[in-house]
Amino acid sequence: MINNQILASKLLETGAVRIQPDNPFTWASGLRSPIYCDNRVLLSHPEIRTYVIDLMAKVVKDFEFFDTIAGVATAGIPAGVLLADRLKLPFAYVRSKPKEHGRQNLIEGHIREHAKVLVIEDLISTGMSSLQAVEAVRKIPSEVVGVLAIFQYDLAKAKQAFKEAICPYITLTNFPTVLKVAMDKKLIEPHHMELLSQWSHDPIAWSEQYLSSQTSMSQ
Amino acid sequence: MINNQILASKLLETGAVRIQPDNPFTWASGLRSPIYCDNRVLLSHPEIRTYVIDLMAKVVKDFEFFDTIAGVATAGIPAGVLLADRLKLPFAYVRSKPKEHGRQNLIEGHIREHAKVLVIEDLISTGMSSLQAVEAVRKIPSEVVGVLAIFQYDLAKAKQAFKEAICPYITLTNFPTVLKVAMDKKLIEPHHMELLSQWSHDPIAWSEQYLSSQTSMSQ
Repeated sequence: MINNQILASKLLETGAVRIQPDNPFTWASGLRSPIYCDNRVLLSHPEIRTYVIDLMAKVVKDFEFFDTIAGVATAGIPAGVLLADRLKLPFAYVRSKPKEHGRQNLIEGHIREHAKVLVIEDLISTGMSSLQAVEAVRKIPSEVVGVLAIFQYDLAKAKQAFKEAICPYITLTNFPTVLKVAMDKKLIEPHHMELLSQWSHDPIAWSEQYLSSQTSMSQ
Repeated sequence: MINNQILASKLLETGAVRIQPDNPFTWASGLRSPIYCDNRVLLSHPEIRTYVIDLMAKVVKDFEFFDTIAGVATAGIPAGVLLADRLKLPFAYVRSKPKEHGRQNLIEGHIREHAKVLVIEDLISTGMSSLQAVEAVRKIPSEVVGVLAIFQYDLAKAKQAFKEAICPYITLTNFPTVLKVAMDKKLIEPHHMELLSQWSHDPIAWSEQYLSSQTSMSQ
């Protein structure tokens, strides 16, 4: 795990990561969360975009040898293809489910059999979408040397899922680092830290507790 | 319109474009077609991928001034972000329909109001998906200086659609150029040329005629 504070700071500055303890976001899963991450806004900032790829190009040395890059569709495609361009490696992308029409590919582009593949992801939350992509690549059959993502929430569930899948993963920065930077910048109040720590410890319980508190408030 | 024969040749060599007059493909629309294009396979060939972006970086001079690149999701994202990287410009991508969950963005990343946007597409068939993206960008409101795509089938329907949308478009290569190269390489027989020309003239009529010929053959 890399704890890049410069990137954490840029995520906050651009609004790629937003923290709203008092006004939680609703995630795709329906869960309420005090934090939301949309790294795609980084794409609109050429210097930050380049900084992310610079970091990735350094970090890849921590993985075993690979000869192919795969991006997790859709959000992992831009960073994936930019890194592939930097490293002059073949690129393909992996859908979480096949298209409804056409050739029904899970993998778009071509990954040869027995390739050694680094999977690029935008964000690791529970790790599910990354590990679906890992599974698709392994079925080719090719070898996955690991997953590299821009940001992670640092959830125990993800750690467990990657461990079970026997898949190394690295993120450029993460939730605790963003929190530290947000505190330093006084973007969050000290009393929020306990709340955010509770969320990070068990996001589902946090969400349920938040929702039930809202219900009782409205009664 | 650019008629790049080197790229046409690479499309055929890599199997990005396939021509099977005697065994037509079924497109997403259900139409039968003697030609199929999947430019994503180019992503697995670093030199060809770079060649495509080199060509794009030259061709962009034929558009009016722009300050932002938008890729049409999903296939237009890789070329779009690579071109944005080359030109050091902001990048975003445009979905043809909003995601089912989350922030319901048609545009992922950020395009500022009154930006001057070049839209990058993988393939122009009828022009519909490109022009949906153009419309989404115009609604920001931002200006679209045009659409740049890797390949087009050169269909009259696309020409008409872009004309009606008052939107310039350029492709790096196209169906007639690929046909010429395929003939030179003896990948297709001379008697296929008439069939392919008929298809290009009216793909829907060609598909209907093909399907009815199959029905009568099976009777």
